Amino acid sequence: MAVGLSMLLTAMVLTACGSVDNLSGGNTSNNSSNKSGTQLTGQANSSDYQGVIKNGRYQTSKSRGVSVSQESNQFNIKGFESELLNISKKEFSTKKYIFQEGQYLSTNTVTNWLGRKSKSNPTGLNPKNNGSTSPTRRNPLYLSQINEQDFLVQDGKKLKTAGITIGLAMNSVDYYKKTKYGATFETDISKSQMKAEGKKIANKVLARLRKKSALKNVPIVIAMYRQASDDSLVGGSFYAYSVNASGATKVSNWTKVNQKSYVFPIQSGQSSPNSNDESSFENFKSEVQNFFPNLSGVTAQAQYTDGSLSGMNVNINTQFYSQTEIISFTQYLQTAAQKYLPANAPIDITVQSTEGIQSFLSRKANEKKFSFHVFNSY
Amino acid sequence: MAVGLSMLLTAMVLTACGSVDNLSGGNTSNNSSNKSGTQLTGQANSSDYQGVIKNGRYQTSKSRGVSVSQESNQFNIKGFESELLNISKKEFSTKKYIFQEGQYLSTNTVTNWLGRKSKSNPTGLNPKNNGSTSPTRRNPLYLSQINEQDFLVQDGKKLKTAGITIGLAMNSVDYYKKTKYGATFETDISKSQMKAEGKKIANKVLARLRKKSALKNVPIVIAMYRQASDDSLVGGSFYAYSVNASGATKVSNWTKVNQKSYVFPIQSGQSSPNSNDESSFENFKSEVQNFFPNLSGVTAQAQYTDGSLSGMNVNINTQFYSQTEIISFTQYLQTAAQKYLPANAPIDITVQSTEGIQSFLSRKANEKKFSFHVFNSY
Repeated sequence: MAVGLSMLLTAMVLTACGSVDNLSGGNTSNNSSNKSGTQLTGQANSSDYQGVIKNGRYQTSKSRGVSVSQESNQFNIKGFESELLNISKKEFSTKKYIFQEGQYLSTNTVTNWLGRKSKSNPTGLNPKNNGSTSPTRRNPLYLSQINEQDFLVQDGKKLKTAGITIGLAMNSVDYYKKTKYGATFETDISKSQMKAEGKKIANKVLARLRKKSALKNVPIVIAMYRQASDDSLVGGSFYAYSVNASGATKVSNWTKVNQKSYVFPIQSGQSSPNSNDESSFENFKSEVQNFFPNLSGVTAQAQYTDGSLSGMNVNINTQFYSQTEIISFTQYLQTAAQKYLPANAPIDITVQSTEGIQSFLSRKANEKKFSFHVFNSY
Repeated sequence: MAVGLSMLLTAMVLTACGSVDNLSGGNTSNNSSNKSGTQLTGQANSSDYQGVIKNGRYQTSKSRGVSVSQESNQFNIKGFESELLNISKKEFSTKKYIFQEGQYLSTNTVTNWLGRKSKSNPTGLNPKNNGSTSPTRRNPLYLSQINEQDFLVQDGKKLKTAGITIGLAMNSVDYYKKTKYGATFETDISKSQMKAEGKKIANKVLARLRKKSALKNVPIVIAMYRQASDDSLVGGSFYAYSVNASGATKVSNWTKVNQKSYVFPIQSGQSSPNSNDESSFENFKSEVQNFFPNLSGVTAQAQYTDGSLSGMNVNINTQFYSQTEIISFTQYLQTAAQKYLPANAPIDITVQSTEGIQSFLSRKANEKKFSFHVFNSY
């Protein structure tokens, strides 16, 4: 049975935009002109999920746009969503499952859940307003983002939900105003307080999801993220997740996640995650910075998992005076990056000017050479 | 001899940042900490030149920045420089030659040559001011940009100039003002007039270059480019080039270049370079445009050489609401591009939002599959 399913899915993958017969119509016409029924996005490689296209359109999240409209630090959104997908991949194999943007939590539901609990908002997952506006005495908002990811398998001629992942992003700082348009104040939230509140919220969310018939008997992964402050140049990080077997309405077991992102160069007074990596980056930076008579800016986001570098995005800003300068610089970066930057971890290097991106280099985990691309124009 | 040289150069390529002993010092210390002497940028692949690094710094053009400060249409700069490099590659093999930004024409020289001939500027290559401000009676500026590319080979312990390429960019429209800060007027320049003036200018330039002792006995390639108008969304194109053997002071033979760039979708009233390619693009566009509930903008630059598509840059602008939307969209594009876009030609696809580039896909000439990269954040 499992073999049959995976063969079926493999066949779908091979047909690029594999068409899945739709529920109502049984529309089986070939997918090149077929805009009705369900299709898949196609799978770029085995480490990515296919997504769901319905009637020629991507099936977007039922709560689409809530995070974008509420979060002020973009890094907290991008990092939260893509790392959540990595956690999902541990439980729901990309070979077996199809990814679907969250269909069970609507914009209304998510907006209400993110609100404070009150008479008019009984489902609010953040604490009641206790009347205080003092940073240390008020009840802060703990929960800041909810992200739902659905995982489907083929069931006869339909796609069926076989598991879901919920990401809960917790504030490390709650920003608030005492009066509308007034100054912004901050309530810091300690890690221990955040963790305790997060566990309570996760249990409530799990119990609520189990009330939906389609989610009664599927595994539900809940993953906890600590957001970075608004002025951070990297996003926050996941600190724990739980895999809740079919039917479980209470989290029985949390798995710790040890992950943190840093900005390179490390600012004085800030702790360094690894002095070797730091000096590697500093050498690369000073080498690259003086390549042109005008100075280039070199910074990086570096992510550490269990104490080791698990990914780095290097951003280089400089002014170019010709296309040949861009080509030469990119070639030079290819050798300099290989020579100076830490080995093994995946690294992206983006080269920008005031005109936008000019070239970029990329190396996957455990590869040696950077591949690159210079953006051209006709 | 030729074999020895190419072996030597191959060895340099293999050592990534190959150090070349410098003239004065004979400094042969290893290049990791060596900031003096001449190095090469490293060669990314056999179809790119290595560039020259002197004392740890890229050897920039002696006329660096002249084009950037004078041209208003960026596409005329980028396209001019990178296509000029392609013309150079026909004459100066990337396996044998090292690229150096122009060192023989200085900023002053280029600025004077681009000016009008006058008492105070006897070397001006553009015609004298005849006093008229009428669009049809005045003498327009024909020559708009000069680009020099030098090609070196190893000669004992030094690098020696073994050939140079000069690109001359001619105006299709000359923009001028009658009074400072006044309105901008235009003089259109016909192709035949441009070609005639271009030939005269090329001969003058060739004769002047031969007066420099280092350039007396090397091949000099001169390539002629017709600029696009300032409001064009693609750059201009090369229309001819000449390879002038050692010592020749007059161009004896021009090779025609049949190249032109177009913007897709083709505007009504504009001629289409190829109706098959046009409908391929239109199908791709309409398929992709409606992928999200919000509309995506899809345009392209397409370059035709000898009547066939020789390259395409597709630009997609859309609004994303999550990182998973970006991943799914990119996967979908990978299959849609392969299915709909013209085969064989190299194609780049850039996916942008208001936040900048989000992902990009690329397929080399004669490849089938698009490779892709989704930009991430930590």
